[in-house]
Amino acid sequence: MLLEKIEHVNDIKKINKEDYGALAQEIRNFLIEKISVTGGHLGSNLGAVELTMALHLALNLPEDKIIWDVGHQSYTHKILTGRKEGFDGLRQFRGMSGFPKRKESICDAFDTGHSSTSISAGLGLVKARDIKGEKSTVVSVIGDGSLTGGMAYEALNNAAKTETNFIIVLNDNNMSISENVGGVSKYLNNIRTAAGYLDLKEGIYNALKGTKTGDNMVNRLRRAKSSFKQLVIPGMLFEDMGITYLGPVDGHNIDGLVRIIQEAKRVKGPVMIHALTQKGKGYAPAERHPARFHGAEPFEIDTGIPSHPRNEANYTDIFSTVMCKLGQRDERIVAITAAMPDGTGLKRFRNMYPLRFFDVGIAEEHAVTFAAGLAAGGLKPIVAVYSSFLQRAYDQILHDVCIQNLPVIFAVDRAGLVGSDGETHQGIFDFTYLSGIPNMNICAPKNKWELSDMLKFAVGLNMPIAIRYPRGAAYAGLKEYRAPIEYGRAEWIYKESGIALFAVGSMVKTAEGVRNILKEKGFQVSLINGRFIKPIDEDALLDACADHRMIVSMEENVACGGYGEKLLDCMNRNGRTNQYLNISLPDAYVEHGNVEVLKRDVGIDADSIAERIERMLKDGQKA
Amino acid sequence: MLLEKIEHVNDIKKINKEDYGALAQEIRNFLIEKISVTGGHLGSNLGAVELTMALHLALNLPEDKIIWDVGHQSYTHKILTGRKEGFDGLRQFRGMSGFPKRKESICDAFDTGHSSTSISAGLGLVKARDIKGEKSTVVSVIGDGSLTGGMAYEALNNAAKTETNFIIVLNDNNMSISENVGGVSKYLNNIRTAAGYLDLKEGIYNALKGTKTGDNMVNRLRRAKSSFKQLVIPGMLFEDMGITYLGPVDGHNIDGLVRIIQEAKRVKGPVMIHALTQKGKGYAPAERHPARFHGAEPFEIDTGIPSHPRNEANYTDIFSTVMCKLGQRDERIVAITAAMPDGTGLKRFRNMYPLRFFDVGIAEEHAVTFAAGLAAGGLKPIVAVYSSFLQRAYDQILHDVCIQNLPVIFAVDRAGLVGSDGETHQGIFDFTYLSGIPNMNICAPKNKWELSDMLKFAVGLNMPIAIRYPRGAAYAGLKEYRAPIEYGRAEWIYKESGIALFAVGSMVKTAEGVRNILKEKGFQVSLINGRFIKPIDEDALLDACADHRMIVSMEENVACGGYGEKLLDCMNRNGRTNQYLNISLPDAYVEHGNVEVLKRDVGIDADSIAERIERMLKDGQKA
Repeated sequence: MLLEKIEHVNDIKKINKEDYGALAQEIRNFLIEKISVTGGHLGSNLGAVELTMALHLALNLPEDKIIWDVGHQSYTHKILTGRKEGFDGLRQFRGMSGFPKRKESICDAFDTGHSSTSISAGLGLVKARDIKGEKSTVVSVIGDGSLTGGMAYEALNNAAKTETNFIIVLNDNNMSISENVGGVSKYLNNIRTAAGYLDLKEGIYNALKGTKTGDNMVNRLRRAKSSFKQLVIPGMLFEDMGITYLGPVDGHNIDGLVRIIQEAKRVKGPVMIHALTQKGKGYAPAERHPARFHGAEPFEIDTGIPSHPRNEANYTDIFSTVMCKLGQRDERIVAITAAMPDGTGLKRFRNMYPLRFFDVGIAEEHAVTFAAGLAAGGLKPIVAVYSSFLQRAYDQILHDVCIQNLPVIFAVDRAGLVGSDGETHQGIFDFTYLSGIPNMNICAPKNKWELSDMLKFAVGLNMPIAIRYPRGAAYAGLKEYRAPIEYGRAEWIYKESGIALFAVGSMVKTAEGVRNILKEKGFQVSLINGRFIKPIDEDALLDACADHRMIVSMEENVACGGYGEKLLDCMNRNGRTNQYLNISLPDAYVEHGNVEVLKRDVGIDADSIAERIERMLKDGQKA
Repeated sequence: MLLEKIEHVNDIKKINKEDYGALAQEIRNFLIEKISVTGGHLGSNLGAVELTMALHLALNLPEDKIIWDVGHQSYTHKILTGRKEGFDGLRQFRGMSGFPKRKESICDAFDTGHSSTSISAGLGLVKARDIKGEKSTVVSVIGDGSLTGGMAYEALNNAAKTETNFIIVLNDNNMSISENVGGVSKYLNNIRTAAGYLDLKEGIYNALKGTKTGDNMVNRLRRAKSSFKQLVIPGMLFEDMGITYLGPVDGHNIDGLVRIIQEAKRVKGPVMIHALTQKGKGYAPAERHPARFHGAEPFEIDTGIPSHPRNEANYTDIFSTVMCKLGQRDERIVAITAAMPDGTGLKRFRNMYPLRFFDVGIAEEHAVTFAAGLAAGGLKPIVAVYSSFLQRAYDQILHDVCIQNLPVIFAVDRAGLVGSDGETHQGIFDFTYLSGIPNMNICAPKNKWELSDMLKFAVGLNMPIAIRYPRGAAYAGLKEYRAPIEYGRAEWIYKESGIALFAVGSMVKTAEGVRNILKEKGFQVSLINGRFIKPIDEDALLDACADHRMIVSMEENVACGGYGEKLLDCMNRNGRTNQYLNISLPDAYVEHGNVEVLKRDVGIDADSIAERIERMLKDGQKA
């Protein structure tokens, strides 16, 4: 086993050159075996094995820095920097993260998780190096999918001016998560197919030379700022911006990669290495189904089939089904995703209504303003997006959708704690950033039927609205509570006295648990499904204040700007002095792990909440 | 006067062709005269006179749509759509906006204000048109500066796939607000200088043809997806993405522009017209000083000199001075701006420390993650940015700076109500979106000396921190109150009993006014300068609760997630039931107008606040 020799960073340099292929194979087997048990990002990691080995061979970590865009391809990097043992606890609570973490290793130069940040961060490290007069190599590794994100382009634009070495590796698998879209994809495709033109340059020079006109022309071309060389070889988009382009190169050929990285280190200024890789390389199921093995659940290695097939529908499934129905009912309904047709459940809508479906690439900012344009044009756009990715479009929601009060519907998936992806992906800020925006409305369903009802309600609302729902199985309880959705109105589920639980979204189910615990102890407990986070149902709250000693708000979001603070503000404005307890997430990032474990850890599980309520009842206000 | 004939949209079509030049001159004179009185965006509007006339001649508004990126060049459009009379009240309260507004005219297709949104919005209108089976022309007009913003590129990438007509006019004045930077700028420059190469294509074909190798090569080039034509003519970056490129064309030649727009209307798919214009065209002072006349205060037409020269330093001046001192004291200090070296006051720092100054272009997202990279590299970056523009980088602050707890300092200028730029530019959300982010710290100075003290404090903090200060004259009162800044500590200014005013930033001055009014009426009033919005000074608050009947919080931000809600939350957690009043901005966009007028209108002036406090004291909790 060659892998046994890899215990610390740079141990790979002790491996014999002729064993590189065998080591790559061992790493692949290791990854498949481990990820089949823990789940994780399989495809992107299998595609980056040789590229990572080559980087570690050509560089000297930790002095040299690698920034992994998104970071879901950094597993081989973790193996090569002494973290093999971490894979048994991969993405589990208190275990190793699935993304680069500076607090995990000195070899992780910058934390990533969202797309398209690596060139910006890398350029910052380059400038810091230069200002401090240090010598080291900085490499930003970015996928072709990430390159559709606007900030990658902002960074390229800025990097172009740099006069010292900065290596950008374009890890091009012709794919973002499912398939790549748009002009840049087209451009990269042209390069791939143009590899044969590398020999054209000399040919053209030779053909032109010898005649007077021809010589003259060659000279003019040579003098041109965009030189002739750049005009006929691949990469001119980058060269035109001032970035030296090397490639394309086979991203699975370690020797070739090492040579080109060495060459790139000698370039003064920014240089892009264009490496062609295959997502899922070496594992047939992942090669065939790149989207399914992007972020995989545990699976059977032989077949690639999930080890624990889902029995219950999740909220994404419900959304998917309702969207198809809505699309049939109203031709003005259009759907937008930023590179997530599978993840958001819009694939079926796409298949049924291809002309009303838009995958804009990894480009949340554009997605939202594009939706605003569609709405201004008289359509009813629904943007399906993960909560933490929608953070990218905060200004677009505020500036392009809500100032004009345009009826854009945001289907905010993966909201609340998402689990194993950890701190970069937790959807725990959306109540905050959306609530502060005038004209925005926010609601959250208690169960699967309510998601359906809320979507239908939203289509008729004619104002901006976000519907936020969590990852995982859709709650199928409380089926009998299905009063029609009314604007800004909560739903009373149990009406007693004593303690009133105001819960929204996923916390309604938790509140049932809290209520059961408290009932057993002899308390009277009302349960109100808040439904709307903005605007809140002030009448329901004031009614509850009239005949309940204590009001408890419950949400899966940070407290600041959330549901609870709105309730407390309303109580204060109306002079209500009932005891009030705000159950929400702490002002902190929440790491990776099983969602139920995380909930206990941060104290928003039923037991913890019931205990806090009891304590507060006993001690007076403080809890 | 030709301008007299322009009373409604399309009236320009009744003007004789030979009078176009004269009309353009009249429009220029009109703009200079009006803006010299009201202030406004002069340079960009003077540069777009002919382009706007040509668009109105070639299109049929309001069926056809024009989306003006940023919108600060839309004055001629306003004149040509019957809004001449509005210019006397330009940018004044209840008067005409300086930006396109759908509520102002049916000819304004989409509201703009921030940069780089027009292609996204335009593409939305294009798709809506197609889905509804309508025929019309959609034109997005975008400046070369706006083209450095990432979302413009996301939109271009997405637009490239479109199969129906969509016109993008690149209004290229080789300048964003002050000067253009980066790779795209370089690329466009290449195009400008490459205009002479238009004849090269034929020449090369001719030279190659006739020999067997040559013929073969021409054929191969012709077959190539990136055709030879595109390789040697300008615009290939766009052509390579799949966007037809027309230009460059003289942006002040109306006939030429009309012809090229007509030609563009016939293209199937996206087409870019590259028009070369001059910022400030036709007014010598604006041609010479593009940055100064970007957003101009009222000025003397003969000289271009401001009519009301400033006597008092504003906060930007203070920031500018302190930055130079800090830069001298600590070599790790670096400064970043997104295309605003003048507006943010970093120009002097740039001149003194050019190697530690970075203008990244209109690219707030990249600016913030780049700063995170600089901080990860051991430097102390200070990002100087307007509050409303920092909204663009919300995810980058949350994801790239604060998860890693990197010591990036945000100097948030133009925070609070900014006045005449109106709803798109009001900096009234930053407490909200920044407060919700774990690890973020926020403070706001009461006066000019405190801004200086806070900057020095921030440099030593070693955590992310935002210092927010308003537009306009720096408050020079309360000079004698200058206790050292301590982390999370408020400053007691007047300690009495009865009513405790907790004010932050600009509201400390207002609170003095409130206190004076209440004192005259016989009340006892304490005044606390909150200093920190996050974390708040809980001790000061609880102390105040002990010997004050009423607590009042005062901030120039929307209530949600702001300073006041943090105070109320703290009071609740600690079982304090003092009367509490939250003075903040309503949950609404605030239009343009004089800041003092706006403050009265939304009720955060001293008189309104004093009245609310009195009423609440009289009526009990409700106010």
